[in-house]
Amino acid sequence: MSINYEIKKANKVKQLREKSTYNKKTVYSILDAGLVAHVAFNQDDGPVVVPMIYGRKGDTIFLHGARKARIIRLLEKTNRASLNVTLLDGIVFARSTFNSSMQYRSVTVFGSPKIILDNEKKLSAMKIISDHTMPGRWTEVRDSHLNEVKMTGVIKLKIADASAKISSGPIEDEIEDYELRVWAGVLPITMQTGTLQDDNHLIDNIQPSDKIKKLENTRF
Amino acid sequence: MSINYEIKKANKVKQLREKSTYNKKTVYSILDAGLVAHVAFNQDDGPVVVPMIYGRKGDTIFLHGARKARIIRLLEKTNRASLNVTLLDGIVFARSTFNSSMQYRSVTVFGSPKIILDNEKKLSAMKIISDHTMPGRWTEVRDSHLNEVKMTGVIKLKIADASAKISSGPIEDEIEDYELRVWAGVLPITMQTGTLQDDNHLIDNIQPSDKIKKLENTRF
Repeated sequence: MSINYEIKKANKVKQLREKSTYNKKTVYSILDAGLVAHVAFNQDDGPVVVPMIYGRKGDTIFLHGARKARIIRLLEKTNRASLNVTLLDGIVFARSTFNSSMQYRSVTVFGSPKIILDNEKKLSAMKIISDHTMPGRWTEVRDSHLNEVKMTGVIKLKIADASAKISSGPIEDEIEDYELRVWAGVLPITMQTGTLQDDNHLIDNIQPSDKIKKLENTRF
Repeated sequence: MSINYEIKKANKVKQLREKSTYNKKTVYSILDAGLVAHVAFNQDDGPVVVPMIYGRKGDTIFLHGARKARIIRLLEKTNRASLNVTLLDGIVFARSTFNSSMQYRSVTVFGSPKIILDNEKKLSAMKIISDHTMPGRWTEVRDSHLNEVKMTGVIKLKIADASAKISSGPIEDEIEDYELRVWAGVLPITMQTGTLQDDNHLIDNIQPSDKIKKLENTRF
């Protein structure tokens, strides 16, 4: 198995080529660090983009929604979808607006979406999405009811093409601009979790598990 | 002028209708709080989604990229584009995975993209994007060179249809699940800025302006 995705027309990065990579490990690491994928598909009169949570196993991304949701029905019908996961890492204040930019990690994936209809396979995919979004939670809660599985639409998207772009480097200003009396630097940005908030209807004095507690006050 | 966007087929929210709104003020407030828009467009063999920074003035969204960038060239040619801005506010741990969800604010916009070719109008749009992304920075740095303006592709997207979805409410579990001995609650998530990092090539002992300093250690 290749460690890189093949470079084809769809995933070939043309802008800022020096920041691009087709390395599978890099693609996976960005997918695994994100929480929301923006999924594009075509409706009657043009492209639509919808935020969805997801999970990954190997080269397959799993997406879910209500079984009757428009996005599930449209993904079910199409043989080509695209999604992007972007993590913002900072704002780069260069000495001109032209050279100012963002620090980010971004992945774009293309593939053919397939709906999963078998209930056992759906459950496995739902666990992968749950493990990605709420690590450890799957085994803490009750089993899913069969009607819940049936009401959930699960799409698997095998990655056919992918590319990643990482912008993290130093500021690159025009030579003559370095003499300007203007500050330049980076404002870091992180996704940060806060303190767990108890539901109002907890019974007894029940506490979150260690696995859930570990998610408090951390950075993505 | 209506305070709401008209409900049409493209922007009509069908899932979680109770969380949806077509109110312009709400749409604007989410657009103004975000930093990255995910823009969908069609390439030869299907939909593609690309993260872009943006700015807003009234009912118009401005997007920019390199003049020769694929997305600018494709947006220039198409008469229909869609973008989504999503801000993640938390993970909702319900007593079942089925009722677990995310807290978020999300806006989807549809419109007809037009490229701006006039240099003065381009500059105005570039200022709007800069003011959105780096408040106050536009007047601190040198003026843009004409060739920089020419190398920048700027797209204006007048909002034709839009809808917002806000999920912030309490956990809604199945009645019988409230008796389960399992913790439930919310893990808040915020986009958080850190401490400004000086560029390595600052002259003298130049400091960031108060406007830039104000962006440190704050939440979006």
